[in-house]
Amino acid sequence: MADGERISRLREAVCRANLDLVDKGLVIDTFGNVSGIDRELGLIAIKPSGVGYDSLTPQAMVVLDLEGNKVDGDLNPSSDTKTHVRLYREFPEIGGVVHTHSRSATAWAQAKRPLPCLGTTHADYFRGDVPVTRPMTEAEVVSDYERNTGLVIVETIRTLDLSPVEVSAALVANHGPFVWSDDPMRAVEVARVLEFLAGVNLSARMLNPAEPAPDRFLIDKHFLRKHGAQAYYGQK
Amino acid sequence: MADGERISRLREAVCRANLDLVDKGLVIDTFGNVSGIDRELGLIAIKPSGVGYDSLTPQAMVVLDLEGNKVDGDLNPSSDTKTHVRLYREFPEIGGVVHTHSRSATAWAQAKRPLPCLGTTHADYFRGDVPVTRPMTEAEVVSDYERNTGLVIVETIRTLDLSPVEVSAALVANHGPFVWSDDPMRAVEVARVLEFLAGVNLSARMLNPAEPAPDRFLIDKHFLRKHGAQAYYGQK
Amino acid sequence: MADGERISRLREAVCRANLDLVDKGLVIDTFGNVSGIDRELGLIAIKPSGVGYDSLTPQAMVVLDLEGNKVDGDLNPSSDTKTHVRLYREFPEIGGVVHTHSRSATAWAQAKRPLPCLGTTHADYFRGDVPVTRPMTEAEVVSDYERNTGLVIVETIRTLDLSPVEVSAALVANHGPFVWSDDPMRAVEVARVLEFLAGVNLSARMLNPAEPAPDRFLIDKHFLRKHGAQAYYGQK
Amino acid sequence: MADGERISRLREAVCRANLDLVDKGLVIDTFGNVSGIDRELGLIAIKPSGVGYDSLTPQAMVVLDLEGNKVDGDLNPSSDTKTHVRLYREFPEIGGVVHTHSRSATAWAQAKRPLPCLGTTHADYFRGDVPVTRPMTEAEVVSDYERNTGLVIVETIRTLDLSPVEVSAALVANHGPFVWSDDPMRAVEVARVLEFLAGVNLSARMLNPAEPAPDRFLIDKHFLRKHGAQAYYGQK
Repeated sequence: MADGERISRLREAVCRANLDLVDKGLVIDTFGNVSGIDRELGLIAIKPSGVGYDSLTPQAMVVLDLEGNKVDGDLNPSSDTKTHVRLYREFPEIGGVVHTHSRSATAWAQAKRPLPCLGTTHADYFRGDVPVTRPMTEAEVVSDYERNTGLVIVETIRTLDLSPVEVSAALVANHGPFVWSDDPMRAVEVARVLEFLAGVNLSARMLNPAEPAPDRFLIDKHFLRKHGAQAYYGQK
Repeated sequence: MADGERISRLREAVCRANLDLVDKGLVIDTFGNVSGIDRELGLIAIKPSGVGYDSLTPQAMVVLDLEGNKVDGDLNPSSDTKTHVRLYREFPEIGGVVHTHSRSATAWAQAKRPLPCLGTTHADYFRGDVPVTRPMTEAEVVSDYERNTGLVIVETIRTLDLSPVEVSAALVANHGPFVWSDDPMRAVEVARVLEFLAGVNLSARMLNPAEPAPDRFLIDKHFLRKHGAQAYYGQK
Repeated sequence: MADGERISRLREAVCRANLDLVDKGLVIDTFGNVSGIDRELGLIAIKPSGVGYDSLTPQAMVVLDLEGNKVDGDLNPSSDTKTHVRLYREFPEIGGVVHTHSRSATAWAQAKRPLPCLGTTHADYFRGDVPVTRPMTEAEVVSDYERNTGLVIVETIRTLDLSPVEVSAALVANHGPFVWSDDPMRAVEVARVLEFLAGVNLSARMLNPAEPAPDRFLIDKHFLRKHGAQAYYGQK
Repeated sequence: MADGERISRLREAVCRANLDLVDKGLVIDTFGNVSGIDRELGLIAIKPSGVGYDSLTPQAMVVLDLEGNKVDGDLNPSSDTKTHVRLYREFPEIGGVVHTHSRSATAWAQAKRPLPCLGTTHADYFRGDVPVTRPMTEAEVVSDYERNTGLVIVETIRTLDLSPVEVSAALVANHGPFVWSDDPMRAVEVARVLEFLAGVNLSARMLNPAEPAPDRFLIDKHFLRKHGAQAYYGQK
C-alpha cells in the first residue's frame, strides 16, 4: 500500500474513533480526543484542537511525526498532542490513545484515587487497579505542561512495575483518564469500559467501603480468559 | 410439533431475549447473555461467545444438550455456558437464564452484599433478599471455573433454604447477577427489575443505612398478589 | 354535554395521562397508574391492571363509581384502585391521582424518610415536606390492603395537619409515592417534579447531611408565587 | 444595522439559547430561562414567564430596558427578570444570563456549599470555586425578591473579590445556579459545564471527602490555556 493511502486510512480510523467517542457518551463539548499511529510510517493522526465533533472529517485530522512536528493538515492539533506523542514514544506496543473527561473516571481522578479492581468486568480489561498519577509540580505545569503530563503517566506505570498492555490506562490527578490500546477504535472501547467501571466502583465503595480486592487468581483468570495465548473467549 | 420446528422456536425466543437485553440497557459491549431450554427435547439454546448484538440472528444461537455438548450451531457458545447448563440441571422448574454485568446489580455483587428486600417493588418479584455467593476458592477458579460458578449459585440458594422460584436470582461475588425464570423473555424482565431495585436500594441505603427490612407480612402480601393460586394482579 | 361524552373525555384524559407517565420516564414495566374523576358524574376512570402501556387505549380504561363498583369496561381495574377511590372520597378538592414506583421517590419511601423541602423548586410545588406514612400493621395488610393504603395516606396528611392542596403527595412507607392534583395530567406533572426533587435532595443530603430546611418565609414566597390569589408566575 | 434589525437578532439569539437549554437537558418543565443584552441599544430580551419550550418563538421573547421596563412583547417576562436586569447593570462585561434548576448544581445550592474547583475541567471554565450566596433575609424575600436575588449574587462575587469574568456563575442558596457569559449561547454552554462539574464533584467528594483543592498553578494554567492573551487552545 502506498504511503498516501496509509495516511488516508489512518485519518479515517482516527476520525471514526473520535466520532465513536461522542456516540458512546464519553464527551461533553470538545472535551476529548483520540489519536492513532501508523508504526511503519512513524506518523500519528489526531483530532484538531477545539473543533466541534459535528464538523469532524478525516481531512480535518492533523498528521504529525514522532517528534510532534506537523506533517500534514491545516488546523492546530489537539492541545493534548504532546501527551499522546509521549505515550507513543514510550509504549511501543500501543496503536491508539484516548483522552476524555468522562464523568465517573474524572471523579476518581479528582479524588486522586486509583480505580480499584473490584470484580471480573474490570479484570476482563485491566489486570489490576488503574493507577492515578502523583500531582504535577509547578515546574512541570508551567513549562511544557502537556509533554510532562505524558511523562508523569509513564512514570506512574513504570514505578508500579505495570505492563502498559495489561494496565492500559491511567488517571491523571485532578484531570482525567488517558487510555491506550492496539488501535484507536479499541482504545475508545477500553475508555468506555473504564467509565462504566468507574461508575460501578463508586457505587460498590459506597455500599462497602472496607471491601478488599478480589483474589488475585480471580483477576488473572478473567484477564487471561480474554487476553494472551490461553484466551478462550469469543470465536478464535 | 416436529423437533426441528421446536428448535427453531427456541432459537428465535433466545435470540429475541438477547436483543431485548440490549434494548433494556442491561448490556454494554458483549457483557451479557441469555439462554432458554426446551425441557421436552432436553435442549438449550444460548448466545454465541463474543458476538456483537448487532449481528445476532436466531441461526447464530448455539444449541446444546444438558451435558453441555454442542448439538447444533457454527459458533462457540457463550463462555458462561457451563454456568447456564448447571442451573438448568439443578433447578428443573426454570426455562430461561440471564447473565448481565448491569451497573447497579454488579455494584452490589462487587460489594459482596445481598440485595436486601426493602419494599414492595422488590417483593412483587422476589420473596426476600437476593443472596450473594461466597467468594470462590482458587481450586474452583483455576479448573472448570464456569461450571463451578453454577455450583456456587446452587449452593447459595440451597444453603439459605430458598426456593429458586421465589428467589429467582443470585449475585455472584465480585462478578454480577444471574437471573432465571419460566422462559428467556421473562428472565430478561426479572433481570431488568433486579437492576432497577439495585439502584433504588443503593439510594435507600444512603438515606437510611440502619433501616431494617419491611415486615414479613408485607413482603408475602406483595409476592402472593402476583404469584401462585391467590394472585389477583393483572387480567387472569 | 351528554354523560356518554363526558365519560369518553374522562377515558381519554386518563389514557393520555397514563401514556405521559411513560414518556416522562416514571414507569418501568407496568409499575404505575393514573386515574381521574368527573366530580359531576361521580365517576372515576383508571388504568386496567397489568396491561402494557403499548396497548393502552381510552376504551381500555375502567370506569368505576365512588363505591369502587365497576360501571363500565371489560378489564379488571388497577390492583391499586381502592387506594385511588379512597383518596377521591377523602379529598374532595382533587381530580387526578398518580401512583408510581419512580426511582428516587421510591428510595425515600423505602428509607421511611419524608422528602424534605430543601429549596425553591420544591416550594414551587409543595408547601413543605412531603410526608411518609407509618408502616402498615399486619391487620391492615392482610385484609383490604389497598383500601387501607388509602386510609393511611389520609391519616398521614390529617395527623400532620396538612392541606392536601398545599402538600399534594405522600410516600407510602416501603412502597412508593402517591400524588394528586386538579386533573390527571397535572398530577403526572407533579409526580415528575416529585421524582426530580427526590433525586436532587438525595444529592443535597449527601453533600450536607446536617443542613436545616430553608426559612419558612422563602418556602411561602415560592409556593404563593405560583398558587393562590397573589400568584404572579406565568401569563395570568 | 437598524435598531429594528438588531432587536430581531437579539430575540432570535435569546430564543435559540432558551431552546438549547432544553436540548442540553438542563430544564424540566419551565424551570429555566435565558436572556441576552444588546449593550449598544441598552435592551434586554428574555423568555416569557411560564411558557412551554415547545411553543417558544423569537417573537414571544420580551424586550426590556435596563430599568426593567417592558419595551416590546405581548407576554409577561420571566418572573426572574429583575435578577437578570440586576446582573446586567452590575456586571457591564456580560452579554447573556442563564438561570436553571439543573439537577446537580441545584443539589449544591440546596446544600449551601460552593462548588469547589477540584480539577482541570473546572479550571478550563472557572478560575476557582463557584460561590454560594448567603441565605436571604425575610425582608429581602418578602419585598422585591427577584431584584434582591440579583443583589445578593453581586454581593457574593464582590465580597469574595472575584472577577465576574473569571468566575461567571453563582449558586443562590436553597435555589439554584445563575450563570453568565459573553452572549446567551455561550452562557448556556457554561451552564451545562457547571451542571457536569456539579455531578462529577459530588462523586469526587464521596470518594475522598478530605481532598484539598488542586494547586493554584494548575488552575491558572488551565484557565489561561483557554482565556486571555496567552490562550493556545483551539484554532486562534
